This record gives sequence, structure tokens and C-alpha cells, in this order.
Amino acid sequence: MLDPKDWEQFRALAHRALDDAIDYQRDVRDRPVWQPVPDEIQASLAQRMPLDPTPLGDVYDRFVREILPFSSGNISPRFFGWVQGTGTPTGALAELLAATMNPNVGGRNHVAIYVERAVIAWFRDLFGFPHDASGVLTVGTSAANLIAVVCARMRALGPNAREIGLQGSKKRLVGYASSSTHGCVRKAFEIAGLGAHALHILPVDARHRVDPEALSAAIARDRAAGLEPFLVVGNAGTVDVGAIDPLDALADIAQREHLWFHIDGAFGAPGVLAPTLRPMLKGLERADSLAFDFHKWIHVPYDAGCVIIRDGELHRAAFASDGPYITRMERGLASATPWFTDYGIDLSRGFRALKIWFTIQEHGAKRIGQAIETNVRQAAMLGDLIDRHERFELLAPVATNVVCFRYRKPGMNEAQLDTLNDALVIAVQESGRAVVSSTTVNSHRAIRVCIVNQRTTDDDVRETLAALDELASLS
Amino acid sequence: MLDPKDWEQFRALAHRALDDAIDYQRDVRDRPVWQPVPDEIQASLAQRMPLDPTPLGDVYDRFVREILPFSSGNISPRFFGWVQGTGTPTGALAELLAATMNPNVGGRNHVAIYVERAVIAWFRDLFGFPHDASGVLTVGTSAANLIAVVCARMRALGPNAREIGLQGSKKRLVGYASSSTHGCVRKAFEIAGLGAHALHILPVDARHRVDPEALSAAIARDRAAGLEPFLVVGNAGTVDVGAIDPLDALADIAQREHLWFHIDGAFGAPGVLAPTLRPMLKGLERADSLAFDFHKWIHVPYDAGCVIIRDGELHRAAFASDGPYITRMERGLASATPWFTDYGIDLSRGFRALKIWFTIQEHGAKRIGQAIETNVRQAAMLGDLIDRHERFELLAPVATNVVCFRYRKPGMNEAQLDTLNDALVIAVQESGRAVVSSTTVNSHRAIRVCIVNQRTTDDDVRETLAALDELASLS
Repeated sequence: MLDPKDWEQFRALAHRALDDAIDYQRDVRDRPVWQPVPDEIQASLAQRMPLDPTPLGDVYDRFVREILPFSSGNISPRFFGWVQGTGTPTGALAELLAATMNPNVGGRNHVAIYVERAVIAWFRDLFGFPHDASGVLTVGTSAANLIAVVCARMRALGPNAREIGLQGSKKRLVGYASSSTHGCVRKAFEIAGLGAHALHILPVDARHRVDPEALSAAIARDRAAGLEPFLVVGNAGTVDVGAIDPLDALADIAQREHLWFHIDGAFGAPGVLAPTLRPMLKGLERADSLAFDFHKWIHVPYDAGCVIIRDGELHRAAFASDGPYITRMERGLASATPWFTDYGIDLSRGFRALKIWFTIQEHGAKRIGQAIETNVRQAAMLGDLIDRHERFELLAPVATNVVCFRYRKPGMNEAQLDTLNDALVIAVQESGRAVVSSTTVNSHRAIRVCIVNQRTTDDDVRETLAALDELASLS
Repeated sequence: MLDPKDWEQFRALAHRALDDAIDYQRDVRDRPVWQPVPDEIQASLAQRMPLDPTPLGDVYDRFVREILPFSSGNISPRFFGWVQGTGTPTGALAELLAATMNPNVGGRNHVAIYVERAVIAWFRDLFGFPHDASGVLTVGTSAANLIAVVCARMRALGPNAREIGLQGSKKRLVGYASSSTHGCVRKAFEIAGLGAHALHILPVDARHRVDPEALSAAIARDRAAGLEPFLVVGNAGTVDVGAIDPLDALADIAQREHLWFHIDGAFGAPGVLAPTLRPMLKGLERADSLAFDFHKWIHVPYDAGCVIIRDGELHRAAFASDGPYITRMERGLASATPWFTDYGIDLSRGFRALKIWFTIQEHGAKRIGQAIETNVRQAAMLGDLIDRHERFELLAPVATNVVCFRYRKPGMNEAQLDTLNDALVIAVQESGRAVVSSTTVNSHRAIRVCIVNQRTTDDDVRETLAALDELASLS
């Protein structure tokens, strides 16, 4: 009833759209990295729900006119604004195929389940987790962190955790993470009902890495106060400067103190594929749980994250449900238990695994690692350029792939520099030449360049700095 | 670095894949609805992570051989197993385009934000919510229900809920839902730390609708026991039999008792577009929050759910975060606040809105309603066929689009009938002729036919019953 009346007419339009999509990706350098959505297009998009049909060709033409040109720019080689991957043409094609098959991958016995199991096993092995570790794909690391927090909470509250909740326990759970930790860890504490006050924030060193001694001290202090430490979160790539916590030291403390050790490796964890980063990630393989994204440094299209849990049985015990409508059977479509819904928040969920499968099959893991390594080298190069530049200064050492710096103008005070650098970030965005972002580092407003981009050349990095310099000199 | 070396070679392959995808959807009637994944393909898919590249053509050929034929069958006109939509060719094409643009729709100022705002506003208006209600797209109703529970919890705990959590409150919150409620509501209580014991289960009548008087009595009893009732969940389409709770009566009680009124309308809420269902959904417009899916009766490809929250300010207060790395700016790409991450679990999130936009633009809301109405008529027709059939019996009245029944064989006791009907469900799945599922209704094992299928003809319904009859007579 909602299928094409004329399949050949649909086919012709679809081939035209595919050509446009390929050209759009191939010619990404010919367009501004970003441009604002014009007011008249915002108004057009805000029209009321259409009650009557529109010929698909007209809908597509409107898409080409009003939507396609005004995206966020992260597919561009000069997008360094935030930690965002580019996607690939193959990834986009895989999304077409996944939506064509259109399975619900919450469970049951069909091929998408086996593909998701396979890609999770690949990364479970890559990260050095045991074979009985479990995992599930998520929208992203935010949800993956939440799942890990819920598992850690279950270990702390005991096997009847799901029934009694926090309301039925006298324990006062507290967890730990550094001040450089992404806000989604705090959000996970909030959603899980622990409350943000239960996440105790640890100081970082000059390289934005957590101080393990501060963790030991905090645990002792909190235990003395009658609280129950249950979880420590380490960072494999902090969002602000790309720092990697001393994971081995955190693992030691977690083991000694019987805490759940979770790692937020949203973008950094796949760094194990890059020779420069691999040694910095030592200890990753000792975590109780690890969250990371495929849509960042693995360049799978949005969205796809993952959580891996060492204790697969506990993971399942924390999320598996039954219900007459999801009866498991011995054979047929309702077999092949456990199901992915037994490991996460969602029952209905799409075929995220296919774009991962295509990406890793096409390129092999090594090439993904080379792309990561290239970005790390480019960040170091940019750091050097800034160090040697008379008008720019680094605001944090370049740990991995994030460069935080600012433009200095003689005679300007701190407040004026803050204003200038924020304006510069907007100016370069509006110029369409590059996208960088703003953050605060050691109380200074900073220009942040995150290099998570398989399309970036060394020239792109140099020309982005030149564009900033040029715009600053005009201001 | 991960882009095609030869764009024209990629283009040729992509066009071939597109043709295959279109044929796959067009010829869906020519294939078995479902077939098991052969052991040798399971073994092949379980191979270790490839380290080296494979030519994309070879990867695609393997996809065609090992993955494409073994999907779950819900795109077939004779799939009635669970409440799953079919998707459409247009929806699949939209996924290609969304992944080509590949924005992160967690926030910032780009067109995907405006498209998501538009489609949420369409459904906000359709459901009769006010203009200052808020919403966010999710993976599905499970996550949408969780977001609603977190909002309701915040209203109950007060403005510092996020900081103190349940651990910092002396209140003992309890919520209510009927025994026919989907398990994801219980899961939301578990994840949110309330605990399943805090979800008090209400009885249902013979039509599987919640008993409002039981709700009033439970509230009084719980208040007398020192508990704090805070939430009631109504169902707009129960998963088992498709029942719709008396929403107006629930709204009255929630209003009188100052409870948050949430509706799980996963598949049923879009029924407001269907003349037969619209009157049954009266009261929907009075809810504090409503969760529903686009990948069910709106036939958008997996995955896309939504939650709409009447009190948009509270919604934002429950989820908005700041962080230096997500600084909002006046202009440029970091403007256009509020962001969708301010309303939900995820920061990184894909462009789910595009497939919804394409689907509603192409068909118009009225045609979506006609497809729903057709399914309701087909369910009634099947109910009549079963009623008049000497060997089948209905196990629940047909409320909307779900038909629960069983085959009867003379001389069989209840246990034998349970075994027979479970076997029958597997047999028809394995025959490839249709997919139906199993559930338990009033302690009997039932065959469940959920008609959420824009491809189903009346003949498909009749022939599914005939296939079951034929297989039963052979058993």
C-alpha cells in the first residue's frame, strides 16, 4: 500500500539519488565545509504535516534544494570541530542495504543477529576481552556508558537489584571519574537514579590525566564516611584534549578495592589499532566494561556505539526480560537466544552491524589503524606549527589527536582574548573554509581542533591554521 | 583514506547493489517469508576480524550470498509474527541519503536539526499536544518510555533530582501499569533505579484493558502505606492483544491524584489516523508524555521511536547538560540551542528524521491512516473467519489488529493443545508460507497474528489461516 505504484519509475529516481549521493561525497572539497540554513528554508521545513501525497520526485527535488546542502560538515576534510567521524560511501551504501532488509535486531533467529555477534566478537578480541564477555551495539557511547553503569550497580546491589532498585537498598553507592570525563557519564548516573552527587570527581594532572592517588584517597575517605564505592570510570581519550588516563594504574586500584572498572573509550579505544596509541592504552584489556563508538574513528555512518562487558552472565542478568510476547522457542524464528534485547535498553533496534561489517571487511582493521595513526601525526604536526608560530599558543600538550590553542594579540587582556578566540571560531566556520570549535582549557577560551577525519591531508591542517591566522589579522 | 580509489568503479557497484535492493523489495512475494540461517553460513560469519582489505565487490558478493537471503521476514506481506513494520523502498533510500550527509544530530546548527524538529512538531500536533511540548527521536519506544519515566521521576523528586538521585531522597516512589503492559516499562523502572517492585501491576478486564477503579484503590492503599505514587502508564495498543486502555479515565485519575500520566503508544498511537481507532484513543491528548514508534505502523525502516513531553521545560531540565566541549555560541555551527541531546540519553545520534520526513511527505498522513485502517479491518476479518471455523477458536476478542487464537483437536487436553499450537507456529515459519508467533492468553498457549503490514492483502490473511489449518491436519 505504501510501495511504489510504478517500480521502474521508482528505480529511475533511486538511481538518480544514488548518483547525487556519490557525487556529494566525491566532491566534498568543492563545497563550503559548513553554511547556515537560510531563514526561508527553516520556515519551509517548519510547515505543518502534509495530509496528502506528494509525487516522490517532487519530494526528492525538495530534499536536494532544502536539505542536502546544509549539513553539519563533518564529512569534509577540513572539519575538526568535534570528535565526529566522516562516514564513507561504503557505509552509506550499507545503510541502504540494512534498511532494505529492515530486520528488527532485538532478537530472534535471523542473519542480522549473527552479523552483530560477529562484529562485537571482533572488537571483544581486539580489546583483549575474554570469549565469554558480552556486548551490544547502541546509538553511541552515552547509552553504552549507561548500560555499564547499570551493570556495575547490579554487582554492587546484588542479584535482586532489578527488583529492589536503589529505593530498596540501604547502600549509598559512589563512583569516581576525573574532571575531564565526558558529561554523559554524569548523565548515566542521573538516569540510573544514583544522582550526580554520587559521582565523585577526581583531579587531573597537567596532561589532563586522572591522578590515581587521588582515587585511592577518595575511596578511603568515602568508606570511612559510610559510603559504598562501586565504580571507577577511566578515559581512553578525553573529549577536551584527547588525554588517556593511566588505565593500568586504575585497573590496579579497582582490583584491590573491588570496584567495577569502566572505560569510556568513545573515540580513543580503537586507537589500539594505531602503533603510537597502543602503548598508551595499556590496561584497557583489564576493564570490567568498555564503551566506544564506531561512528568516530572507525568512520561508520551515524549512529553506532558499543559496550563490552567482561562478565557476560551479569550483563544478561541485568537486562534480560521475558514476556509471553517474546517467548523463546526451540526452533523457528523465535529461537537463537540470547537476544540482544537481553543486553540493553531496546527491544526494537535496527541493523547497525551491517555498516560495521562492510567497513571492516572492505578496509581490514589495519587500514583503520593507519587512518588513526595519520590523524595522530597530523595533530602532532599542528602542535609543532602552533609552537613555532608567533601569534598562536598551545593551551594543552597534544596527547593524541586534539589540539587546543588560541590566537594572541599584543595588548589584549584575558577577557579580550577569550572574546577574540570565540569570534575566530565562528568566523572560520562562517567562511566555509574549515570548522573548528571552542572549549575552555585552564580557564582560557580555546580553539579546539579534533582530528578524527580519514579525509584530512596535511595541507588541510596547514590551510586551516592559515585561515585562522588570516581571519584573526582582519579582526 | 577510506574513500574509493576509483569512484566510477564504486559507482558501478553501488548501482548494482541498488538494483538488487529494489528487486529484493519488489519480489518479496517470491521468497519464503523466513528461512533459517544455514550452519555453514553461521560458521562463515563467525570468522575472526579481517586485518587486510578485501575488494568491495567481493565483500558485496558475500553479502548477497550469506546475508541478504536470511533476514527476519518482516518486510513480507505474510509476516504477522510480532508488531513490526515493513519499511518501504523510499525509507531505505532515505537511509542512504541520511548516511551520505552523515550529520551528528545531537545538536548544533545544521539542517538535520530542523528536519527532526519538524517531524516531531507534526506528531505533537497530530496527537493534540501543545506547542510548547517537546520531543526527541529515539531508537524505539523502550528508550522513549525510559525518558518519560526519568521526567516523571524528576517532577516527583523536585528540581534537584539530578543531583540527589533516589539515593538522596526519602520518598518511596511507586508507579502503576496494567498486567498487559510491555516489559520495557518495567525495564525503564529498573534502569532508572526505581526497581521493578516500584511498578505496581493493575488487573485488566476481559478485553485486557486496565481497571481504573483498581488504580484509584491502589493509589489510596499505597499512600496510606507511606509510599508516594508518581506515575501511571496507560497502553495505546497492548503488545499481546492490541488492547487500548481507557485513556480518558486514566487521565481523570492522574489529574485528580497529581500523577504523571504516560502513554505507551508504541504501535497504537498512530492509530489516531485511522477512523476506527481514533475514538478508542480519546484521552491520548491529555497525557503528560507519549511514546511511540515510527518503525511499526508508520513503516519507516528500523529504528525510529519518539517521546513527546507536555512540559517541555521540565523535559529539558531533566536532560540538558553543559560541558566546555559543547559550548553553545551565538552564531556558527555551535548555535541553534536547544539541542536534541538536551532532551535525551544520547549526544551522538544519527539523522533518523529524514526517513520519517520522506515517508510522510511521499504518502501524506491520510494514506498512512488508510494502511492502518486496512490492517484493523483485516484483523476483524480474520477474527470472523476463526469464529466460524470449526477447528480454530479465538482466545481474546479482536480489539484492534492482533488476533490470538488456537487450533483445537478433539480429545486433546490443555497441555497437548499447548504443545500442538507451539509446534504449529514453528511449522508455519519453517514452511516459509507465513510467520506468526506464540503467546499466552488466559493461560492458553496461543497463535498470535499481529497485522502491522502495509503489504498484506485479504488473501494473505486467508491463506495464512489455510496454511495453519493444513499443517495442523498433518500433525
